[in-house]
Amino acid sequence: MPESMKCFVMRGIGRVGVMEKPVPRPGPFDAIVRTTAALICTSDTHTVAGAIGDRHDLTLGHEAVGVIHELGAAVVESGRFKIGQRVAVNAITPCYACDDCQRGFSSQCGGMLGGWKFANVKDGNMAEYFHVNNALANLAPIPDDLTDEQAAYCCDMLSTGFIAAEQGNIPIGGSVAVFAQGPVGLMATVGARLCGAGLVIGVESMPQRIALAKRYGCDEVIDHTKEDAVEAIRRITGGHGVDCAIEALGSPGTFAACVSATRPGGTISNVGYHGDGDSVPIPRLDWGVGMSDKTIRTALCPGGGERMARLMRLIRTARVDPLPMTTHRFAFKDIQRAFGMMQTKEDGMIKPLITFG
Amino acid sequence: MPESMKCFVMRGIGRVGVMEKPVPRPGPFDAIVRTTAALICTSDTHTVAGAIGDRHDLTLGHEAVGVIHELGAAVVESGRFKIGQRVAVNAITPCYACDDCQRGFSSQCGGMLGGWKFANVKDGNMAEYFHVNNALANLAPIPDDLTDEQAAYCCDMLSTGFIAAEQGNIPIGGSVAVFAQGPVGLMATVGARLCGAGLVIGVESMPQRIALAKRYGCDEVIDHTKEDAVEAIRRITGGHGVDCAIEALGSPGTFAACVSATRPGGTISNVGYHGDGDSVPIPRLDWGVGMSDKTIRTALCPGGGERMARLMRLIRTARVDPLPMTTHRFAFKDIQRAFGMMQTKEDGMIKPLITFG
Amino acid sequence: MPESMKCFVMRGIGRVGVMEKPVPRPGPFDAIVRTTAALICTSDTHTVAGAIGDRHDLTLGHEAVGVIHELGAAVVESGRFKIGQRVAVNAITPCYACDDCQRGFSSQCGGMLGGWKFANVKDGNMAEYFHVNNALANLAPIPDDLTDEQAAYCCDMLSTGFIAAEQGNIPIGGSVAVFAQGPVGLMATVGARLCGAGLVIGVESMPQRIALAKRYGCDEVIDHTKEDAVEAIRRITGGHGVDCAIEALGSPGTFAACVSATRPGGTISNVGYHGDGDSVPIPRLDWGVGMSDKTIRTALCPGGGERMARLMRLIRTARVDPLPMTTHRFAFKDIQRAFGMMQTKEDGMIKPLITFG
Amino acid sequence: MPESMKCFVMRGIGRVGVMEKPVPRPGPFDAIVRTTAALICTSDTHTVAGAIGDRHDLTLGHEAVGVIHELGAAVVESGRFKIGQRVAVNAITPCYACDDCQRGFSSQCGGMLGGWKFANVKDGNMAEYFHVNNALANLAPIPDDLTDEQAAYCCDMLSTGFIAAEQGNIPIGGSVAVFAQGPVGLMATVGARLCGAGLVIGVESMPQRIALAKRYGCDEVIDHTKEDAVEAIRRITGGHGVDCAIEALGSPGTFAACVSATRPGGTISNVGYHGDGDSVPIPRLDWGVGMSDKTIRTALCPGGGERMARLMRLIRTARVDPLPMTTHRFAFKDIQRAFGMMQTKEDGMIKPLITFG
Repeated sequence: MPESMKCFVMRGIGRVGVMEKPVPRPGPFDAIVRTTAALICTSDTHTVAGAIGDRHDLTLGHEAVGVIHELGAAVVESGRFKIGQRVAVNAITPCYACDDCQRGFSSQCGGMLGGWKFANVKDGNMAEYFHVNNALANLAPIPDDLTDEQAAYCCDMLSTGFIAAEQGNIPIGGSVAVFAQGPVGLMATVGARLCGAGLVIGVESMPQRIALAKRYGCDEVIDHTKEDAVEAIRRITGGHGVDCAIEALGSPGTFAACVSATRPGGTISNVGYHGDGDSVPIPRLDWGVGMSDKTIRTALCPGGGERMARLMRLIRTARVDPLPMTTHRFAFKDIQRAFGMMQTKEDGMIKPLITFG
Repeated sequence: MPESMKCFVMRGIGRVGVMEKPVPRPGPFDAIVRTTAALICTSDTHTVAGAIGDRHDLTLGHEAVGVIHELGAAVVESGRFKIGQRVAVNAITPCYACDDCQRGFSSQCGGMLGGWKFANVKDGNMAEYFHVNNALANLAPIPDDLTDEQAAYCCDMLSTGFIAAEQGNIPIGGSVAVFAQGPVGLMATVGARLCGAGLVIGVESMPQRIALAKRYGCDEVIDHTKEDAVEAIRRITGGHGVDCAIEALGSPGTFAACVSATRPGGTISNVGYHGDGDSVPIPRLDWGVGMSDKTIRTALCPGGGERMARLMRLIRTARVDPLPMTTHRFAFKDIQRAFGMMQTKEDGMIKPLITFG
Repeated sequence: MPESMKCFVMRGIGRVGVMEKPVPRPGPFDAIVRTTAALICTSDTHTVAGAIGDRHDLTLGHEAVGVIHELGAAVVESGRFKIGQRVAVNAITPCYACDDCQRGFSSQCGGMLGGWKFANVKDGNMAEYFHVNNALANLAPIPDDLTDEQAAYCCDMLSTGFIAAEQGNIPIGGSVAVFAQGPVGLMATVGARLCGAGLVIGVESMPQRIALAKRYGCDEVIDHTKEDAVEAIRRITGGHGVDCAIEALGSPGTFAACVSATRPGGTISNVGYHGDGDSVPIPRLDWGVGMSDKTIRTALCPGGGERMARLMRLIRTARVDPLPMTTHRFAFKDIQRAFGMMQTKEDGMIKPLITFG
Repeated sequence: MPESMKCFVMRGIGRVGVMEKPVPRPGPFDAIVRTTAALICTSDTHTVAGAIGDRHDLTLGHEAVGVIHELGAAVVESGRFKIGQRVAVNAITPCYACDDCQRGFSSQCGGMLGGWKFANVKDGNMAEYFHVNNALANLAPIPDDLTDEQAAYCCDMLSTGFIAAEQGNIPIGGSVAVFAQGPVGLMATVGARLCGAGLVIGVESMPQRIALAKRYGCDEVIDHTKEDAVEAIRRITGGHGVDCAIEALGSPGTFAACVSATRPGGTISNVGYHGDGDSVPIPRLDWGVGMSDKTIRTALCPGGGERMARLMRLIRTARVDPLPMTTHRFAFKDIQRAFGMMQTKEDGMIKPLITFG
C-alpha cells in the first residue's frame, strides 16, 4: 500500500500547487477511495480567489470517482461495499444523523452549508486518494454500464442543476427561464425538461454555451448582451413572465432579473453562489411589494448515495448525456494547466476531465 | 330604495372626505351589500399617503360586512343567496375564472395583486352600500352565532395573518418569530399556534401590543428597541434560529432580520407591504450565499367565500377571539376622526370598528 | 343559422343512435361551439353499458374541439373570445366559483365528480354543436400551429394521463410502473417521463399497445399474461418496488397489484375508473398493515383553459406527439360504426378520430 | 456495574413472563440506557397475541425513558451525550443512513416498517436496561422541566397521534374526524387542533374515552353505537364530509367509514395497525369510483431525536398535557398484572405507567 500521494492544493489565496500528503486512513464509518477521474469546478476557482476565506495547503476538488481502497470496520461489517468496487461520491457528504439531516436538510448538516466538507472543511478529492466520511450513506456504487466520466458528472453538475428545477414548482407544460448556461445552468435546463417544463428559455451570451443550451433542450436562448432578458422573457411568454426562473450564476443583477421575469405565484430557484456584496436585492415592485405570491428558493447540491443512484440511472436510461460538457481532457500531472484554463475559461472550456493513473 | 349614499373617499394624495355617490347596481353576477360594520386598515392610510399612486374620490375601505341589498340575475337564479342575508366579503375579490385563479393564485387574479379591487381599482366599502363582483364566489354568509364585528375581522386580519403562518412550512413543535405585533402580526401569532408552532417569539416595542401579543399566544416577546432581535432569537433557539420568520411590517430592515433569524432550511414568510425603495435586501451571508435551503414566500390576503367560512368557523369554535383587537368604536358619521387616529395610531389604537346606521 | 343538429346519443342502457336536437343557445356566461373533430373514449362505452345508470337520449362524447359559434353576453363583453375562433374544451368543465373549486378540487365542482358534466349531467359533444358552461374559464384557444386532432387529445387523454404522473410524487430519476397501456396509460407513460422518472415500466399484453408503450417511453414492458407483474417489477427494481405505480385500468386486481408493486413511502396513483363491485381491496400486508408510508391518490381529468394551454404547449414544443394513438378515422356520419368498434376494440383500435362536416 | 437485569418478555404466542438477561453492551455508535419509566402499548398486546408471528423470550416494550448508562466509542467521541444524562428514545429507531432513510422515510428504514426495531427485531425496553442503536440520531435529551412520565409519552403516543394529523392535509379551519379515541386517537385529536382544524369530531363509545376526547379538544363526539358515524359526520358538516378522517383503530369497517366520511379532495390518514384479513376495503362509490381526488395516507410513528425535541417542546410550552392519559401506575415488579389489565382494558385503562427502581 502506498503511504503518500500527490494532491492539488490551495497554497493560500490566489496560489495553487501540487504537494505530497499521507494517504488518509478511515475511521470505523469511513472509506478511502483511490481516484480515477475528476472534474474541475468553477467553485474551486472561487475558493482559490478567497471567496470562503484563506486556506493553507487544502486539497481542492469535490467532483471525483474512483475505486474503494480501504474501508472502516463498521463499513466492512455492513457487507454493503468491498475493496476494489467502483464508486462515486457526491460533492456534499452529510452525516445523515444530526438534527439538520433529520429535518431533511442534509446539505445544511450540522449548520449552514455544513454538508459541504470537501475542499472546505476537509481535504478535497483532486488527489490520488480521498477520504469519505459516513461512507454507508455517501458511497454510491457505479453501475457497470456507466463510465467513470459519466458518473463524475453526478457528483455536482447533475445534482445541483437538477435540484434547481426540482425546487422550481414547475407546472406540467409550464415555462422556465434558466439564467446562465454554464455546466450547472445546462443541467438546470435538462432538469427543467425532466420536471415537465413545456418551454425552456436560456439566457446566455457565449456562442459555445448557446449551442450547448439548445442541444440540452432550451427552446429559445436569449443573448442578454443583445436584448434585455426580462423584456425578452415577457415577450416570449405573452407578457406573463415564467412560472420559474433559475439563477445559475450568482450575481445580484441576474438574481433581480429572475425575480422580475417570474410571474405572480411563480418561483425563483437560486443555485448560483453569490460571492460578493453585503446583500442581494429583490426588486420591490416586481416582487409585488412583498405580496405577489412569488417564492424564492435556494439549494446546495444534495448529496447521498440514494440520490446518486437516481442520477446515474438518468444517464443509464438515456434521459441525459453529460459528455458533451467535457470540452477538455488532462492527465492529473497536468492539473495546474487545466486549473489555470478553468480560471479564465479560455478556449471555451466548459468542464475539463482529469484522469488518474 | 335609496338612490344615493354616503362614502368615505380619498380626495387625492393626503386628502380624505365624505361624499355622496349613487348606490351601485349589480351586473348579472354581482351583489350589492348594505354595510353594517367595517374596520379601518392601516393599508388605507398608506393608500391615502400615495403608496399606490393618486386616486380621486375613490371610496376607501376593504374590511366590511353587511346584509344583501340587491342581487344580479345569475346570483338570484343560483338560489344560494337571498336579500337581507348577513354576509361578509373578503378584502380580495377574485374572479375565480381567469388563468391566474385557475393556477391557484386567486390573489393575483388577472395579474399581479389583481385580486385586490376594493379601494384600489374600484370603490371600497367604507360606504353605506358596496358592490361585490363575482358574488357567487365572494359572498360569505355570516352564521347566526357570529356578530358582525367578529365576521369583519375575517375580511383581512385573520386571512392575512393566518396565511403568513400557513405558508411558513412550520414543523409541528417548530419555532416561529413574528416581526411586528400590529393586528396582522397578532393574527400571524395566532396562526403560528394554529399551524403547530411549539414556540412563538414576538418582536414588538409598543407596550399595548406586547400585552396583546402575549394574550394571543407569544411565548416570548422581544423588544427590539432594547436588544437586537436576531441575536435574541438565536439565543432563545439555542443558536439555531427559527424554523419560520414572519414579516408583518413591510420594512427592509425587518425583512433582512427575518432572513438572518431563520435557520437553514427554514422559511421567511412575508405579508408586510413594502412601500418604499427600489429593492428589499437579502443579507448575503445569512442567506448562505444563496445555498442555505432558506425559502422566502410572500402572500396577499387570500379571499373567497370558502376560506371565509373556515375563518369564521375558527371564531365559532373558539380557536381565536378577534375582539380584543377592537380598541375603539365609532359611528360612520365620525369616520374622519377615526381615520385620523388610525393615521397616527394615537391612544394605542389597534383597530377601530365603524358601525353603520 | 341552423336550428337543429345531429347528435350521437345513448338511447338507453345498451342502445345508441343518431337523433336531431335543437342547436343549443348560450346563457350569459356560456358558449356554443361548432364541432370539427372529436375522439371516442372508452368511458362512453361504459356509460352506454350502464356504469353510471340509465340515460335517455343523452348526447355522448366529451373529447371535442371546434369553432366558436355563439357567445353569451358576458363572454362577448369580456373581449377574450370571438365568433369563429378555434377552441378546445376539456372533458371536465367546472364552474370555478363554488367552494369545491375554490378549495382547488375543480373536478369535484359542487360535489363528487361534479366537474364531469358532458355526457353525464348534460349533453356531450359528439354532436354538430355543443354547449360550454362557464366559457371564460373553459374555452381554450387552439394555437395556429396545432391541428384540431392534436388539440382534441388534450381534452382528456393528456390531461388524465399526465395527472396520474403529476400526483405520483415521483423523485427525479425514480421508478414508475404504469398498469395498462391504453390511451390513458400511454399518456401516463409520457407523463411519468415528463415528471422525471428514470425508469418507466409498462404492464400490458396486447402487442400493438406494447409497441406503442415502447414508442412513448416505457423502458421495459411486462406482459402480465406471461409473468406476474408484481414479481417482475420487484425483480427489475432490485427487490424494492417502484416509487410510483399508476393504475390506468380500473380493476380491483390491478389496483391491488399497484399497492404491492410500490415501495414503502411510494405512491399509488389511480386514474382508472372502477366500474364494478362494492369495494376495491388494499392488500393488507403489502400495505404494511397500514403503516408503510404508502400513499394512494386518485384523480379525475383536470379541466380549465389554463391547463389546456399548458397541455397544448407540450405538443407544440414537441414534448409529446399524440397522433400515433389515432388508429382509425371516420366521418361523423359513420359514428355508429366507430362506436361499435370502440366497444370491442376490434382491429387494435386505440383512438378513433371523428371529423365533422 | 450490574451484569444482569430483569426483562418482561414474550415467551411465545399468548405467553409472557419476567426473565433475567445480561445487561446489553454498546457497539461504537450505540448507547445503553437504564430505564426509569415506561408505558405499556396496546400494540405489545397484539404482538403477544401473534400479530407479527411468534417470538421467543423477546423483551417487550417500546415507550421508555431513562438515564444513559454506557456509550459506544463514537458517541463518546462526539461529545454530545454523557453518562447519567436523562434521555428519551422513540419507539422507532432508524439508522438514518440507508437509502430509505435518505428518501425521507426513516420509519421504513432498510425496508417496510424496518425502523421498528424494539420488541420486533430486537429486545424492547420493558427492562431495567435497554440498547439504543444509532444513538447519535436516536437519543433525545429530556429537558430539566419535563418529568420522565411526560417524556415517555413522546416515544409513541404523541409522535403517532400527531403524524396522523400532520399527514392529513388539513386546511386552516378545516374539519377532521378522528375514529377511535384511545391514546393514539386522543393525541390525533390534539394533533388535529395543532394542525389548524376548526372542527374536530371524535368517534368513540366508551364513556371515559368520550370524556377525555372532549378534554383534549373534540368539538363533538359521536357514539357510533348509537348512530351511524358516517351519517352523523355528514350531518354535522352540512352534508360535505370532513376534510380529513383519521383512522386510529385498525379495523376494516372503520377504515371504510373514514373513506366514506371524507369529502372529495380530502384525506384519509391511517395510523391504525390493521391486524387481520387479507385486504382492507375501499368503498368504491364513496371513493368516487377512483376519481374523487381523495387521498389515503399511512404512517408509522416517526422517530429520531430531532422530532423528539419538538414533541417535548410542545409539552413544555403547554400545547399538550399527556398526563390525563395515565390512568394507572405500577412498579416494574407488577408489570405482569399491568400487562394483563392492558390486554382487557379493564377498569377503563388508557395508559399504565411503569416505574423502575
